[in-house]
Amino acid sequence: MSELTENAFMEKIVSLCKRRGFIFQSSEIYGGINGFWDFGPLGAELRKNIRDCWWNDMVRSRDDVVGLESAIIMHPKVWEASGHVAGFNDPMVDCKVSKQRFRADQLFFAAVIVDGKAAGYVSALESEKTAEELQEKAETFKRKKALAGKLEPVQARDFTQAKPDEIPLIPSPATGEAGSLTAPRAFNMMLQTWVGALRDESSIAYLRPETAQGMFVDFKAVVDTGRVKIPFGVAQIGKSFRNEITPRNFIFRSREFEQMEMEYFISDEDDWAKWHRYWIDWCRNWLVSVGIPAAKLSEYNHPREKLSHYSKGTTDIMFQFPFGAQELWGIAARGNYDLSQHAKFSGVAMEYFDDAARRRFVPHVVEPAVGVDRIMLAILCSAYAEDEAPDEKGKMESRVVLRFAPRIAPVKAAIFPLLKNKPELVAKAKEVRDLLRPHLNVFYDEAGAIGRRYRRQDEIGTPFGVTVDFDTLGEKGDELRDTVTVRDRDTMKQERMKISKLLEFLLSKIH
Amino acid sequence: MSELTENAFMEKIVSLCKRRGFIFQSSEIYGGINGFWDFGPLGAELRKNIRDCWWNDMVRSRDDVVGLESAIIMHPKVWEASGHVAGFNDPMVDCKVSKQRFRADQLFFAAVIVDGKAAGYVSALESEKTAEELQEKAETFKRKKALAGKLEPVQARDFTQAKPDEIPLIPSPATGEAGSLTAPRAFNMMLQTWVGALRDESSIAYLRPETAQGMFVDFKAVVDTGRVKIPFGVAQIGKSFRNEITPRNFIFRSREFEQMEMEYFISDEDDWAKWHRYWIDWCRNWLVSVGIPAAKLSEYNHPREKLSHYSKGTTDIMFQFPFGAQELWGIAARGNYDLSQHAKFSGVAMEYFDDAARRRFVPHVVEPAVGVDRIMLAILCSAYAEDEAPDEKGKMESRVVLRFAPRIAPVKAAIFPLLKNKPELVAKAKEVRDLLRPHLNVFYDEAGAIGRRYRRQDEIGTPFGVTVDFDTLGEKGDELRDTVTVRDRDTMKQERMKISKLLEFLLSKIH
Repeated sequence: MSELTENAFMEKIVSLCKRRGFIFQSSEIYGGINGFWDFGPLGAELRKNIRDCWWNDMVRSRDDVVGLESAIIMHPKVWEASGHVAGFNDPMVDCKVSKQRFRADQLFFAAVIVDGKAAGYVSALESEKTAEELQEKAETFKRKKALAGKLEPVQARDFTQAKPDEIPLIPSPATGEAGSLTAPRAFNMMLQTWVGALRDESSIAYLRPETAQGMFVDFKAVVDTGRVKIPFGVAQIGKSFRNEITPRNFIFRSREFEQMEMEYFISDEDDWAKWHRYWIDWCRNWLVSVGIPAAKLSEYNHPREKLSHYSKGTTDIMFQFPFGAQELWGIAARGNYDLSQHAKFSGVAMEYFDDAARRRFVPHVVEPAVGVDRIMLAILCSAYAEDEAPDEKGKMESRVVLRFAPRIAPVKAAIFPLLKNKPELVAKAKEVRDLLRPHLNVFYDEAGAIGRRYRRQDEIGTPFGVTVDFDTLGEKGDELRDTVTVRDRDTMKQERMKISKLLEFLLSKIH
Repeated sequence: MSELTENAFMEKIVSLCKRRGFIFQSSEIYGGINGFWDFGPLGAELRKNIRDCWWNDMVRSRDDVVGLESAIIMHPKVWEASGHVAGFNDPMVDCKVSKQRFRADQLFFAAVIVDGKAAGYVSALESEKTAEELQEKAETFKRKKALAGKLEPVQARDFTQAKPDEIPLIPSPATGEAGSLTAPRAFNMMLQTWVGALRDESSIAYLRPETAQGMFVDFKAVVDTGRVKIPFGVAQIGKSFRNEITPRNFIFRSREFEQMEMEYFISDEDDWAKWHRYWIDWCRNWLVSVGIPAAKLSEYNHPREKLSHYSKGTTDIMFQFPFGAQELWGIAARGNYDLSQHAKFSGVAMEYFDDAARRRFVPHVVEPAVGVDRIMLAILCSAYAEDEAPDEKGKMESRVVLRFAPRIAPVKAAIFPLLKNKPELVAKAKEVRDLLRPHLNVFYDEAGAIGRRYRRQDEIGTPFGVTVDFDTLGEKGDELRDTVTVRDRDTMKQERMKISKLLEFLLSKIH
């Protein structure tokens, strides 16, 4: 795969996802809607498996973590307390003429300096070649203004660095004319709506930008009803929304996305760094358990000076995406900031009473937060491979294969009758399907040559192919009667086994 | 239970749900947000089981149904095509003074007629006793105006029946004064937001009021990639939003809710009534399979004159809620209206090509649509019971028990060491927990007397209680060594069995 450029690799993933019904552009028949994605039959199964594995490992397998499902629309005060209304704003620049809006840190500009004197400004939106674009624009500017002298190489700055007296001189990327850009202003990334009969200030509500606040707001309710003892976690899976100005990299950054977050509450006297490390390791191991190679993972520690005042430390588990190493899972030690804020804004004490120590305190929290969409993309990128496989006549041909970990694969086993026009083969194959189906997601396929059927399953990552042939019917004698071949997706080796042993064999490989 | 009034019964359910962490008021520490609910640890497990059972039975167990996950925010044109922007508006009445808004069909009024002459109007919002309230107000009106003569019994009408010349005379329920109510106006029940950098007409988007349109909009994509053959279904589970003016009956009618919908596409030449019946029966059987008694279900056929022009028939499966028989599951035969509308609005042909018949057509659809929340409430109401159980000393005491079907119960088995201060009992009980946990959601509890522990599990509907006692440790000899007692929640009978047989026994009871 190393010969593929990054773009070509992503194109292959995108194309396979569309071709086989993993991921569709949302509302595609209407031209799509930027930043939103739909998940087709196989995508829905893959996502359900990701969620189920996480829920099983994070909640059901542990005595110390319980689940929660809080509403997407919460009381608007929640977002004042959390800081999302006031603080989580990105500086944006409006063009008063075109009505377009730009993220200040993605709008670049440069002074055009001829013979050491500033003659004007040029601007460009962030891209792979912002610098070249600014340089070309500067040259055009000089030519159009018929300026003599030497043009200095341009120095690109982003708009957050523009001085007040420069702003009126910088042209809008939309119109090419100066004078229409505003100074950077805070822009809230939350999607806003109104709830109830009236549509005014009092009925404004937001779609949650994260699921985490649900765990904080319901902290007391969980402590009072959930029979939990510190340290304990509250976990949730659900949709969140951010009005990203530039959704990008396929499903990596979307406006609607699905999070899996857990808040692990610890004593204020406990060693947060120990728990922080514990959860980083847990998350790394979990990623490996769903088929992401450890070699593609790394850790990035946010530098102290970039952390919020309350944060004790944040580590991102990075995944080597085709478009670079990017954040996959953030593990943040947030102190007791969130609970304290909600106590302050709601007037309800957010405390835990330690029975043994006869002591009341506001717990601290360690938060591992990850997105289903990013994990899905990381799994797809990790699983995609091209190799060679023999066709019907033994000639090697190239094949595309998704090497999903069996526990995450949308289909666990495909069941094939060797030929579809032999009723005994078909009946037996359906028997096998019905035997496995209560325990595994299986797919029955009788259409086309067996080699083609294998290839179709390879492409969607089905780890096992079970074929019912004439030997199964006993045509070569009783020893082979009621045996089937089981083909391994990765080795392509076939193994013959009794139908009565099949379920046990598959279950042992899958869990 | 028959001695309980409807209200008292609902109060018991609500109180148990709060006390044991099934259902919380959303954002409760901020005073709540009307029409939104959070689900605590047990509620989240119960909902996951409901979703998983449905997905397993509806999608994974069938060759003819595939899954889908479409975005909550779709292209706004979707809702023009579906009729939700223009058509699905409820007539609303605004009070210009109080700025309150009322649903016209929930605002009642009546003329005050004294000695055969209309003297004025009174109004009241819909409630259990709207008629009495109007009558009382009419009497007060007559007294205040010092009118002599005989007051006729009031005739309540809802505001959709108000004549234009009556509207200025009807008092607002908010102010008690006439003259401030508008004529009924269409009010859109969809929650609106803006997506993207601009906030203007072009960026308006809606939170979906139903998941169904995802299946219609993605119909082509699924047909082109999903290897489906008519008849086939596309199923989805996900959140939807309706700006209900009067959320009510606990989680029965909320503003944010979760749907499980399936669109079953059939040939235009197929017998829709046969499939309609098929799916009604399937849904009834499914409800029984998750523990809803058949005797509490009934069917309501929407009368022809109330159906939309395109509808061939709609049947609601009704459940006998404590507040009356209400719609639980709607099964609608919608013809080819939805696909045709999207073809018209998008310009993309929404056709299916029948290989065998060499024929192209727009499929018809039968849609079973149900809400996770309503099923959850129906299950809770069906499961709730009060009976008597012996305490530690054999004295009968009352107990609350949720008789959940084992497949839907949040916790499948509770594991108890008889005493918590005997390390051998505790160690053995934890061994049993670890043996079962990979296969079942189990709960380990060592706190308090064993009778109290049983009672706590009864109250949350755990079907089995497994106790490790001194016999388990072999104190009565080898025959009982490594045996445990398994207590049945409903019969309260205990059975002794080998630990090695336990998993198989529990699995056989649960699936």
